[in-house]
Amino acid sequence: MKRSKSMIAYACAAALLVVSGMANADALKYRKAVMKAIGGHMGSLGQIVKGGVPHKGHMLAHAMALESTLDMVSDAFKTQTSGGKTTATDKIWTDWKGFVAKANDASKAANALVRTIEDDGDIAPAMKGVGKTCGGCHKAFRKKKKR
Amino acid sequence: MKRSKSMIAYACAAALLVVSGMANADALKYRKAVMKAIGGHMGSLGQIVKGGVPHKGHMLAHAMALESTLDMVSDAFKTQTSGGKTTATDKIWTDWKGFVAKANDASKAANALVRTIEDDGDIAPAMKGVGKTCGGCHKAFRKKKKR
Repeated sequence: MKRSKSMIAYACAAALLVVSGMANADALKYRKAVMKAIGGHMGSLGQIVKGGVPHKGHMLAHAMALESTLDMVSDAFKTQTSGGKTTATDKIWTDWKGFVAKANDASKAANALVRTIEDDGDIAPAMKGVGKTCGGCHKAFRKKKKR
Repeated sequence: MKRSKSMIAYACAAALLVVSGMANADALKYRKAVMKAIGGHMGSLGQIVKGGVPHKGHMLAHAMALESTLDMVSDAFKTQTSGGKTTATDKIWTDWKGFVAKANDASKAANALVRTIEDDGDIAPAMKGVGKTCGGCHKAFRKKKKR
């Protein structure tokens, strides 16, 4: 009886590990997809602003999507994951408040970009503002790229 | 005089090639960034719909961004590029009307997804509809993946 109880305990622990491993992988996939969308909109905006492509009519939609997706960053990173291919550092979770503040900075900068586009204002500094806040968060909470 | 004229002609032709090469690279970068954003939102929605992450509150923003970005696809692909790393086939430009129709299908399906989320309707078939139209366009106009 004792043995079967411990076997059940082991089986439960193993099942929990599998389930939490799946949750871990899903959380990782989700936040990567969110960052991918953000990167796609930023890359698109960068090409338009530098004049590489003539799609100024797309700017507002990219900026709005950028803002709404940046608003998801704190939620997307809330679950601390372990393992898996990632450039996120554990500092995100040891300094959660700092991370949320940086994510909010980026979101605010994106909102300022939206308003600048709507008001037909000076786009370049507004874009710089977004780039700076992206870089600020990456510098503090993302693994350095190997050179 | 004749020689210098032809030299100017060569220099102009070379300069034009450089400029059009840059335009080519920029158009390629832009449409890749647009597709990256689309992929990011689709990937995010996929994770939420399968229940991998608990961020149902993000669905509407992802779906709206997906729709507005899908609306850019025809513009983003309008410039026929040559060379560069791409999975786009030349059929996009030889069958431009067909391509635009498929892109519009995807956009309409994303709009249906937005409305379904807003109306608290059945998400799964609406997501299936989007996935089907993405796949339809990829099947017709994207290079097959090597196996």
